[in-house]
Amino acid sequence: MTYCCGILVRDGLVMIADTRTNAGLDNVSTFRKLHVFEEPGRHVLALSTAGNLSISQAVISTLQEGLENPETGAKETLATCSSMFRATQLVGRAVRHVYDLYGTALKEADLRFDVSFLFGGQVNGGRMRLFMIYAAGNFIECTSDTPFLQIGEHKYGKPVLDRSITFDTDLLDALKSGLISMDSTMRSNLGVGMPIDILAARRDAGQAEVNYRIEAGEPYYHDLRERWSAALRAAHTAIPRPPYGR
Amino acid sequence: MTYCCGILVRDGLVMIADTRTNAGLDNVSTFRKLHVFEEPGRHVLALSTAGNLSISQAVISTLQEGLENPETGAKETLATCSSMFRATQLVGRAVRHVYDLYGTALKEADLRFDVSFLFGGQVNGGRMRLFMIYAAGNFIECTSDTPFLQIGEHKYGKPVLDRSITFDTDLLDALKSGLISMDSTMRSNLGVGMPIDILAARRDAGQAEVNYRIEAGEPYYHDLRERWSAALRAAHTAIPRPPYGR
Repeated sequence: MTYCCGILVRDGLVMIADTRTNAGLDNVSTFRKLHVFEEPGRHVLALSTAGNLSISQAVISTLQEGLENPETGAKETLATCSSMFRATQLVGRAVRHVYDLYGTALKEADLRFDVSFLFGGQVNGGRMRLFMIYAAGNFIECTSDTPFLQIGEHKYGKPVLDRSITFDTDLLDALKSGLISMDSTMRSNLGVGMPIDILAARRDAGQAEVNYRIEAGEPYYHDLRERWSAALRAAHTAIPRPPYGR
Repeated sequence: MTYCCGILVRDGLVMIADTRTNAGLDNVSTFRKLHVFEEPGRHVLALSTAGNLSISQAVISTLQEGLENPETGAKETLATCSSMFRATQLVGRAVRHVYDLYGTALKEADLRFDVSFLFGGQVNGGRMRLFMIYAAGNFIECTSDTPFLQIGEHKYGKPVLDRSITFDTDLLDALKSGLISMDSTMRSNLGVGMPIDILAARRDAGQAEVNYRIEAGEPYYHDLRERWSAALRAAHTAIPRPPYGR
């Protein structure tokens, strides 16, 4: 399994992803699912992946090698795209390129072409944006009404985000909420696990402010988990017992 | 959608179910999903249902009418079963009876025979037990290691239960946890909604201690939701901001 969330607030972008993969229940490994593409001053881009690992890795490699633009014939990479919209279209085209290569064979093996992405960032001082890209290469954009998107095992961690995130939330508070949401998910589903990759990019800063891997036992995250647990226990105790009868 | 949870602690049993049903997205109704069968001094039984409403209602009606025992030929109802195990087997047989009647026709209409139950209680002073019954009529039992079971839209409300429920939790505290878990689910999924039916039965009491419907706007539950939200906000604020860099 996988859990990734992306949060887009007024101040900037937060992206969080776990690293646990499993092929069957008895083959559990660690793979990076949050990929950061950065050229300070030009673009900060973060792409997180869920679904079939062979598909998502092929998409990443395709983006690194570059794809031919069907209209101009020129080779395009994320570094040549002039806007977030163009960059997101390029990711979508890379997904369809990988589908063209492996879709039929996967179907013959009774495997779904199962992949999804969160893709956020800022290009050339344009608007900071966050998208969710589907297996068909189509995508939706995160807006200020619901300023977060999730892929993978998203339900356990959604209540925390529903309650705490608005478009006006401070960037590092949004990161904190994302980390609590990840904690709730990891506690309830063993398929989601440490280490956790995180990115925080402030709007118009031109480069990421946080680009970090939180390893198991890391002191701040350990403390956050303990504090959150203790606070929930205290909140639970402070609520009076139900007065109901028959 | 549906959310039901059953909690079995040392002190007794808690059962909670929402009442929202939908046939498609545009046909939303209220139906009881928590059914209480009580004969004070003899048995307290609670059956909550998820899945296809026509199937779960047919199972309830079959249990009310009674099913012939294939060995003795006698008509059996929940009131004639001598133990929780026998009563659970009877529910399983009622599920298979309904499958025999409608399973083929449902398949022809491309509908899954989708139904599941939580069934808890105490019969004749025997052991208080809680079971999850599947569409095949088979079942698993809740044990003290993980003293709760859930059916329906279970993920949003699981983190709250994972953190707060042990076998030694007080009965009314368990009810409180179940209500918070229901609140988390309702906030994140509009397919789960008020009113909420609840039951709490203390071990060996011979009858239910709480058997109640919480309507929208009911003061205690409104207060619980407000307090829980405020406590989560305060907990979030009290945790220091992440110290991470690049």
